[in-house]
Amino acid sequence: MKHYLSLKDIDSLPEWVAEARKLKTNPKAHKQLGDGKTICLLFFNNSLRTRLSTQKAAMNLGMDVMVMNFGNEGWQLEYEDGAIMDQGKSEHIKEAAKVVSQFCDIVAIRAFASLTDKEKDEAEVVLNGFIRHASIPVVNMESSVGHPLQALADAITLEEHKTKTKLKVVLSWAPHPKALPHAVANSFIEMMQLQDAEFVITHPKGYELSPEITKGTKIEYDQKKACENADFIYVKNWSSYTDYGKVLNENKLWMMTAEKLDKAKFMHCLPVRRNVVVEDAVLDSGQSLVIEQANNRTYAAQVVLKKLLEHN
Amino acid sequence: MKHYLSLKDIDSLPEWVAEARKLKTNPKAHKQLGDGKTICLLFFNNSLRTRLSTQKAAMNLGMDVMVMNFGNEGWQLEYEDGAIMDQGKSEHIKEAAKVVSQFCDIVAIRAFASLTDKEKDEAEVVLNGFIRHASIPVVNMESSVGHPLQALADAITLEEHKTKTKLKVVLSWAPHPKALPHAVANSFIEMMQLQDAEFVITHPKGYELSPEITKGTKIEYDQKKACENADFIYVKNWSSYTDYGKVLNENKLWMMTAEKLDKAKFMHCLPVRRNVVVEDAVLDSGQSLVIEQANNRTYAAQVVLKKLLEHN
Amino acid sequence: MKHYLSLKDIDSLPEWVAEARKLKTNPKAHKQLGDGKTICLLFFNNSLRTRLSTQKAAMNLGMDVMVMNFGNEGWQLEYEDGAIMDQGKSEHIKEAAKVVSQFCDIVAIRAFASLTDKEKDEAEVVLNGFIRHASIPVVNMESSVGHPLQALADAITLEEHKTKTKLKVVLSWAPHPKALPHAVANSFIEMMQLQDAEFVITHPKGYELSPEITKGTKIEYDQKKACENADFIYVKNWSSYTDYGKVLNENKLWMMTAEKLDKAKFMHCLPVRRNVVVEDAVLDSGQSLVIEQANNRTYAAQVVLKKLLEHN
Repeated sequence: MKHYLSLKDIDSLPEWVAEARKLKTNPKAHKQLGDGKTICLLFFNNSLRTRLSTQKAAMNLGMDVMVMNFGNEGWQLEYEDGAIMDQGKSEHIKEAAKVVSQFCDIVAIRAFASLTDKEKDEAEVVLNGFIRHASIPVVNMESSVGHPLQALADAITLEEHKTKTKLKVVLSWAPHPKALPHAVANSFIEMMQLQDAEFVITHPKGYELSPEITKGTKIEYDQKKACENADFIYVKNWSSYTDYGKVLNENKLWMMTAEKLDKAKFMHCLPVRRNVVVEDAVLDSGQSLVIEQANNRTYAAQVVLKKLLEHN
Repeated sequence: MKHYLSLKDIDSLPEWVAEARKLKTNPKAHKQLGDGKTICLLFFNNSLRTRLSTQKAAMNLGMDVMVMNFGNEGWQLEYEDGAIMDQGKSEHIKEAAKVVSQFCDIVAIRAFASLTDKEKDEAEVVLNGFIRHASIPVVNMESSVGHPLQALADAITLEEHKTKTKLKVVLSWAPHPKALPHAVANSFIEMMQLQDAEFVITHPKGYELSPEITKGTKIEYDQKKACENADFIYVKNWSSYTDYGKVLNENKLWMMTAEKLDKAKFMHCLPVRRNVVVEDAVLDSGQSLVIEQANNRTYAAQVVLKKLLEHN
Repeated sequence: MKHYLSLKDIDSLPEWVAEARKLKTNPKAHKQLGDGKTICLLFFNNSLRTRLSTQKAAMNLGMDVMVMNFGNEGWQLEYEDGAIMDQGKSEHIKEAAKVVSQFCDIVAIRAFASLTDKEKDEAEVVLNGFIRHASIPVVNMESSVGHPLQALADAITLEEHKTKTKLKVVLSWAPHPKALPHAVANSFIEMMQLQDAEFVITHPKGYELSPEITKGTKIEYDQKKACENADFIYVKNWSSYTDYGKVLNENKLWMMTAEKLDKAKFMHCLPVRRNVVVEDAVLDSGQSLVIEQANNRTYAAQVVLKKLLEHN
């Protein structure tokens, strides 16, 4: 069974990016492919872009779509094998995943990190529960550890906007009032590791990401130095990984500014806190690619669904 | 860009009403028009009629529909330019509106008045935020100040049920336990100002609506006198406009009764509180048009969407 | 007007089961039947299987689907005739049912028992309110008193898995931490009363169901004895009917085990609490039919919708 769980499920990133860009020129070209097929989007967390772009991608392919907010409209699931279910959880993932599989052809799942239990988050209990027990392809619409639809959209955006062969791309941490997951940063890093580019991560000390993910990638603690001569700067907040889920300090000086950006293009997955993560002058300039990144979410999802429909 | 934000967006009310009535006789006649087009319905507030009738209208035109409850399923938006977004709001309308525009062809928005901040309500921050930043047609599914889909449905209903050329139509305030917005009353008044009819507004002192909207229209504080010889009486509660958002007193005597109604037809936008706003004897009589008004919501929405699809 | 409210609406159970099994072999065979027709699913309570399977069934028949969570997305309804609606309820069922009827061709409703007011629950105020005032066919997606879509799916499952003509089927109560409704048990009993099988109900004393429903059916208080030589054991918790809505005691010994099951097939409507209602060894064995029961929910709903489309 082919799934789309992480960047590892992309056999050739250049080929997928090229196919997504082709779909973008004619989104309804494969409207027959999904005819009579149904996708179920299960949201364990809130969503705007992912909700609308994944629906749109499925409809572009002619699929029927069922959307369910699992928490509000359903109930809490149990993920532990052997649990005695006499508390708040009404159904085991074993049943839920098998049952949902019978009502659709593909299931897509959003389930954020708790940011309280690192081990559980890294075990990806929700996503892996579905993979283990479902009988249909599973799409990751952002899990504890990764957001591979976003990273694929980012790859499409990079390809569209690059003006030279050998790029310098920077991933810069930025301040944020709330503790945020590591998923977007992780998948962006994994995506960049598939690119032939100079890639640098910059963040304050204490915000080191999982060494398994960053291994082999340069980390530069001096943001200014990291950003020098960059072609693209991807900005994103994440909470501490070592002091798991904590906001260590506000580091307001890490906000992205027009001055630091210089001539680089600005990228962010959205939603973004203006004048906290990045100043207005950047977002309102022609150097910001954030709206185009969001647009490419549709074509990233569409190439993923197309491949799952073709190969399953 | 053509939008449907208020009655001002109707170039010829008689022509739109005639077209809606024609659609009503064959709702699927233009099923090709919306083929491959998507509408996104964004609800910042609850809805029954608007939710279902606008979906139905879009499906009648062959459109795909995506429905999103923005508050529960998404997050709070910031509308202030230059805001430092370090509080509860996760995304700025600038990004949200541009992003949503990329996933659909028309966006429809429901965002009620707060009834706490008159200036902000009259600025229509949500609706105007979308208009300013979206790149697609925007439909008002009830904003702080107006409910033009309802008023168009009311115009259709009036046309269907009038039995003479020169009508007398009354808009009568009625009591209600909760503070309600002015939107329905405002749009009904604006619609009536486009009609060649005798039109009177009646309400207790203190419930005067915005003078900008009521200017040129007769206000009669004596409900009985206002209702004399009326052909249609439209009943609706609203909270005080001058003492903004307040319920001044209960004025139970203002409830619409069969006696006051006499031979007139009864209209209300629904939902309606029985035996508070209007007595059962009225709603359960053949003089009540409320069910037909709700039915016409579909054709009001359909003529609006048809025009937006044709002219954008 | 034909509805699907209880088992009584099935004219010939064997014929309906046969038709459902035929639909299962070619679910899209009648895709033209629902073309241009709309179903509205109204949820007053949460749902997973019913939500997805009923949507799927409708889409298989070519229908458009509108889903609404009435409580969260709409408002509270009043059901009392003559009520003075000055409290929390915004709309009367009289208006709501008539209005919804105008936006769709079939309406399906889920409204659970309160378990606090027996008389009100047995009056089925929500479902009966819609039947009384709607002008379109109504489908029961689980009401206070019955869950006939589940029972029809169970009949399909029994038919698929029976290996001899004269079956012994047992309905066994099981423990559960929360007070649960009687609807599933009631409809299963009514369905079994239409079958030519030996049928026994077993539960602890104090858990007697409505005598009107169980009349003529054997009740055996000794679970072990009841289960002897059973072909199918249907397990389900319900709260006390006589001491209405109460959990009398935990009776952990009533949990279904592989030992008690012996050679019988295991059935449950799901969601199920593992190791409380039934032990893992049963659910994870080849004797469990729960996943197939859930699958058959689609074809049960599809045969119901097909008949409503054909006969209304």
